[in-house]
Amino acid sequence: MTAPEIRILSVGSALPGSPIDNARLARLFHMDKVWEQWVDVFIGTRLRHLARDLETGEQSATLADLATIAASRALSAAGLPSGAVELMVMGTATPDMLMPTTLNVVADRLGINGIPTFQIQSGCSGAIQALELARHCLVGGGFRTALVLGGDTTAKHFDTRLDITSMPPAQLVNLILFGDAAGAALLTTEPSGGIAILHRVSTTLTGLGREPGQTLEWYGLADRGQERPPASENYKAIEESVPEMAAETLRSLLGDLGWKEADVDYLLPPQLSGRMTPIIVERLGLPGAEEVSCVAETGNTGNALPFLQLERALAEMAPGDRAVGVAIESSKWIKAGFAVERL
Amino acid sequence: MTAPEIRILSVGSALPGSPIDNARLARLFHMDKVWEQWVDVFIGTRLRHLARDLETGEQSATLADLATIAASRALSAAGLPSGAVELMVMGTATPDMLMPTTLNVVADRLGINGIPTFQIQSGCSGAIQALELARHCLVGGGFRTALVLGGDTTAKHFDTRLDITSMPPAQLVNLILFGDAAGAALLTTEPSGGIAILHRVSTTLTGLGREPGQTLEWYGLADRGQERPPASENYKAIEESVPEMAAETLRSLLGDLGWKEADVDYLLPPQLSGRMTPIIVERLGLPGAEEVSCVAETGNTGNALPFLQLERALAEMAPGDRAVGVAIESSKWIKAGFAVERL
Repeated sequence: MTAPEIRILSVGSALPGSPIDNARLARLFHMDKVWEQWVDVFIGTRLRHLARDLETGEQSATLADLATIAASRALSAAGLPSGAVELMVMGTATPDMLMPTTLNVVADRLGINGIPTFQIQSGCSGAIQALELARHCLVGGGFRTALVLGGDTTAKHFDTRLDITSMPPAQLVNLILFGDAAGAALLTTEPSGGIAILHRVSTTLTGLGREPGQTLEWYGLADRGQERPPASENYKAIEESVPEMAAETLRSLLGDLGWKEADVDYLLPPQLSGRMTPIIVERLGLPGAEEVSCVAETGNTGNALPFLQLERALAEMAPGDRAVGVAIESSKWIKAGFAVERL
Repeated sequence: MTAPEIRILSVGSALPGSPIDNARLARLFHMDKVWEQWVDVFIGTRLRHLARDLETGEQSATLADLATIAASRALSAAGLPSGAVELMVMGTATPDMLMPTTLNVVADRLGINGIPTFQIQSGCSGAIQALELARHCLVGGGFRTALVLGGDTTAKHFDTRLDITSMPPAQLVNLILFGDAAGAALLTTEPSGGIAILHRVSTTLTGLGREPGQTLEWYGLADRGQERPPASENYKAIEESVPEMAAETLRSLLGDLGWKEADVDYLLPPQLSGRMTPIIVERLGLPGAEEVSCVAETGNTGNALPFLQLERALAEMAPGDRAVGVAIESSKWIKAGFAVERL
């Protein structure tokens, strides 16, 4: 049997509020100029948008708010009513609540009903996992149009009452690395129209015997007495593993597609930080491909990132141009990649 | 194109510790005989297994512990090594942490690596959503063997320090209704072997404009000051909506299959409580079908339930017997159904 070609109709995204620079972050956390320069140089992320007012601690937007905006923009860009959506898949590491799912709240706000919806729990590979699941459902489930979403609002996990000068680096780094955002894409099995072909999506668990590079806790009321950190990052393990895993993902993706390195016009690399991403890009070794990154201006927005990159890439690409995207999930290590061709 | 037939190779399950009866629950919560009798009569759930020692508050098993046991039992029953698994899908409302996913911890313990894994966030429809996703991936993604899991450990969300005599009914009911468990099934596209054909799986969001019947919060450290209840249930809305939604699900499922009511030999109905399930079964009106329920002895185990029911049903069914399962997710209302035929 021949699988139908899957096309991307549109991509949309949403970033909360104004960008926050490192000088503002330093003021918020009562840190000095040296700290600010350390973030500039050793992290390399200059700006991020946060769905929370760090001065008051108030959430300014929920993940459902951002995802609804991103989805509405994708629907508008495709000129489709929400009633045309036959399937929804969303990836996030940071849902607003455990239940109901953020995706089903978004569906309600978009006026969508009577279809299957799937919210997957994942980190940096989540957007690509959501694209993969949507692709399998479109091919194997008889659906025509899928709305795929991804997003994270990590700032709600920060404990702003803590003195960050005494915070262990594994927690501190979360305050600097992450940004909040959501993204969405519409996929279709219709053989005409659309802006790109989604050639391949592939994700691979590679966590056997590896310690998590990152953990993110939730707390029930019963856990309130505990003092485990809400989020913790093994930045060293990430720095060591991600470039090699990204290279493996790219090799495997090109092999599956039968594409040569010279066939790739655009590269959407993992967006760990303004400093790490160039190291990964160099490791990937695609000198002919134009890099599409946004981490220095948005921070690591987790499940939103591949949508943010894809939106930028598709705006630049000419018909026939090919792009590959790579993301690595470091909490239990998933290699994820996808390939698109501009129509 | 003709979709391959999907077969069930085996089903496994895991329940933590010894069953806890209502007399023991009454003693734990310092409630009297009247309360115990009220639970017996008006809830109808006699026993449940909990992955937590309610006297000390200690968790006795994580969801990963239970899911690993259930998956190991399914693998043993099928006589398959874990290396034969090409895809894993898990449904849960109550993951151990947000990241890493419970599923990827289970994969690690089973020695599984190098495959795609998807953990979906869902309530009572989650096991069926996981079966549906696995089915689409098997049909559309070229995978041969999928390990599908579902489970919940709700007891970790209880705040046992609270005085339950002053607890609002919406919270109190959670302490009585739920049980902890995990289940697993192995699915294959191989056209021979196995114990049943998985004819159809279908889930439908039906939450448009409806308030959640249930909410389950998570708390980051930043939320510890807040006093929102960790879990809350609108039992009245559930009581009103679930029987009708279950009937709609059954009608739609039989229509899609081209089965008549008389074709159904076994019915696996929603397992809300020992009292609600008989009401739903009566509403479903399949007098010729044998009911397979476990809620009175296990409590509502959420994402584990359809596996527990399927395991019991398949043990009783004769070759050619047909069963339908129905579950309703009440946090934002998903109608879910599946149909199997014993080989």
